[in-house]
Amino acid sequence: MADRKHRGRTGRSGGGRAAKQAERSAPVTKGVPYITRKVPVYEVLDEEGLSLIENNAETILQEIGVEFRGDAEALQMWKTAGADIDGERVRIPKGLCKKLIQDSAPAEFTQHARNPERNVRIGGKNMVLVPAYGSPFVRDLEKGRRYATLEDFQNFVKLAYSTPYLHHSGGTICEPVDLPVNKRHFDMVYTHMRYSDKPFMGSVTAPERAQDTVDMAKVLFGEEFVQNNTVITSLINANSPLVWDATMIGALKVYALNNQACVVSPFCIAGAMSPVTVAATAAQLYAEALSGMAFAQLVRPGAPVIFGTFSSSMSMQSGAPTFGTPEPQLVLYIVAALARRLGVPFRSGGGLNSGKIADAQAAYEAANTLQHAMLAGVNFMLHTAGGLKEDCRWVTKNSSWTLIKPE
Amino acid sequence: MADRKHRGRTGRSGGGRAAKQAERSAPVTKGVPYITRKVPVYEVLDEEGLSLIENNAETILQEIGVEFRGDAEALQMWKTAGADIDGERVRIPKGLCKKLIQDSAPAEFTQHARNPERNVRIGGKNMVLVPAYGSPFVRDLEKGRRYATLEDFQNFVKLAYSTPYLHHSGGTICEPVDLPVNKRHFDMVYTHMRYSDKPFMGSVTAPERAQDTVDMAKVLFGEEFVQNNTVITSLINANSPLVWDATMIGALKVYALNNQACVVSPFCIAGAMSPVTVAATAAQLYAEALSGMAFAQLVRPGAPVIFGTFSSSMSMQSGAPTFGTPEPQLVLYIVAALARRLGVPFRSGGGLNSGKIADAQAAYEAANTLQHAMLAGVNFMLHTAGGLKEDCRWVTKNSSWTLIKPE
Repeated sequence: MADRKHRGRTGRSGGGRAAKQAERSAPVTKGVPYITRKVPVYEVLDEEGLSLIENNAETILQEIGVEFRGDAEALQMWKTAGADIDGERVRIPKGLCKKLIQDSAPAEFTQHARNPERNVRIGGKNMVLVPAYGSPFVRDLEKGRRYATLEDFQNFVKLAYSTPYLHHSGGTICEPVDLPVNKRHFDMVYTHMRYSDKPFMGSVTAPERAQDTVDMAKVLFGEEFVQNNTVITSLINANSPLVWDATMIGALKVYALNNQACVVSPFCIAGAMSPVTVAATAAQLYAEALSGMAFAQLVRPGAPVIFGTFSSSMSMQSGAPTFGTPEPQLVLYIVAALARRLGVPFRSGGGLNSGKIADAQAAYEAANTLQHAMLAGVNFMLHTAGGLKEDCRWVTKNSSWTLIKPE
Repeated sequence: MADRKHRGRTGRSGGGRAAKQAERSAPVTKGVPYITRKVPVYEVLDEEGLSLIENNAETILQEIGVEFRGDAEALQMWKTAGADIDGERVRIPKGLCKKLIQDSAPAEFTQHARNPERNVRIGGKNMVLVPAYGSPFVRDLEKGRRYATLEDFQNFVKLAYSTPYLHHSGGTICEPVDLPVNKRHFDMVYTHMRYSDKPFMGSVTAPERAQDTVDMAKVLFGEEFVQNNTVITSLINANSPLVWDATMIGALKVYALNNQACVVSPFCIAGAMSPVTVAATAAQLYAEALSGMAFAQLVRPGAPVIFGTFSSSMSMQSGAPTFGTPEPQLVLYIVAALARRLGVPFRSGGGLNSGKIADAQAAYEAANTLQHAMLAGVNFMLHTAGGLKEDCRWVTKNSSWTLIKPE
């Protein structure tokens, strides 16, 4: 401002040395709302390999079936759609899930944020980076490792907001265990709304908590806007192998009915919850995801879904899960290709590692997973930043996740 | 051995609990001699992009030319081959380098080791992991960071020998600065021969030292064997941009004449030694490598060559080189594809990073480079393990490497 002549001379917005210094030292908080990839994806399997896995998944669905537990309505819906119901086991004719999904699920969709500049486009060549999810423990230099509280939750939401490299506020960015479980979701969703203007994820720990999330979104965005737009993306985990439980089915129904997005996501530790081999794990994950995404289309044709996987390996000696190892990267590449062939967005990633502290091991394992997830073409990169295996000792906060102990 | 019945019962080689425990605790030093990849390579450019870079490299060679400094014989050889000589500048007609290479350079070759079980096959789908090269500094927990000595050199050769995950003994695994430069190579080559039975690299710091390496190999392998087989692979760096100096030309001539392999390897920090853009750097690297590999074919048609690149980036604010950043990975993918199209083995990699200590940054940057080098299809992975940028402050130990200061 002190030197307007200078601006005139160069044709650029100048302002002299002091102004330039001020400009350089100003905080940079505005980033691109999401990444659009220009590099190709990496494929590990050819047409023959991928169609073999697709056929095997369809065989699993038709001959073994998937359980939809504790939800008579869901069973009735499957029966009407043409599936064979045997108790709570649903045997789905080959091709039915694929048809339901391809007839109505969107290939891409926009999740709206409170700030429209932060809207994210999920699917296609787009990649949305999302913080870690679900850890009951947190740590910092001053207080060390401890159970997370609402204050920690708020701080992590603020941190995720302040970096331009995370495009999403996430969901259970950590588990605020100082709040009662039946009220916790109010504070979590409110924190995302209050301390961030990026898009966020909703509660899935009970159908009524999913409904509370939708109701809160209606206060924020307006009822009509929510009816016509996707403003929440939520994480629906299969209880592998081949089970959807009442909690997850109930939450999925609420979100799908309200046209809100579900990440339909088998959480699978190969060797414990699926066969040890890469090909068989991919077939099981695909069968589980197909059945969940197809069910969302039965609830409301056109409901946005994301094909999700969280695939990991385990030590066959100790039974401990291991993250950041090579085999899950192969599963990731295969399942990403299956999602593209199906025509739905894909979730996987992110900085998965077996680190017990924030050390070199945590860094290189996280880097390995992130690089392969990027090349695989992940659209919704959950767990991009912030998690150590040691802190993610998930307890049964919903019945689809089992207690896993670190080595 | 104590329980032969058990062996009979299971059909496996048993020996009871004690023998099994002994088996489990025995040191595992035998690995596969090299990796043969079964996963596809990743390609960032299509036919149009790659042929554009090839054409631009040929234009550089024909219109700008490459200097072959201080070697009248080399200039005469190029003149006879049909190049235009202007002082020390060699302008090479389009297509000549490619023809010389494709007419005679092997697509794959075997480098023989003292122990034939350690022979490595270089090229095609094979990947040979090679230790770090060229660092004048070493560090350990007891003595900290210091200039390397012969004792360090011996220890690193023993370390590289003892891990089954390195397939090669390397070359200047560190720089033993306690020895006079003109005698150093004897001890280095002797150390590789004495303390390892894996294949190794030879001296390139003067033509007569290259000859000493060949003569020592003849003592080890026998003169006739060396005449008919490749037992040494050595690193010939271009002095980018577009210069081959007398030291490198002299060493290359000795090795090529003796049918020993040369890694013809532009060492390039984009922004300082090549343009900042990925495409232009790839074109320059390809032009430099083409001229070096073609020259080796002029020296002796059929001399084994490896198309090498060490591409890095730099901070345009401080001038400091940066390793492990995204742009060099793109260069790596492009140049690897060019090497495949040309039909020669490719060297790049490995654990490149800008770490100042062995920390999380060093780990994730090294992991990033290694993963992309693997997917790019690197055949000869120099610097797989062992180097930090802070310790690789290369001084001018040969005239093709210039002093680079860490940030």
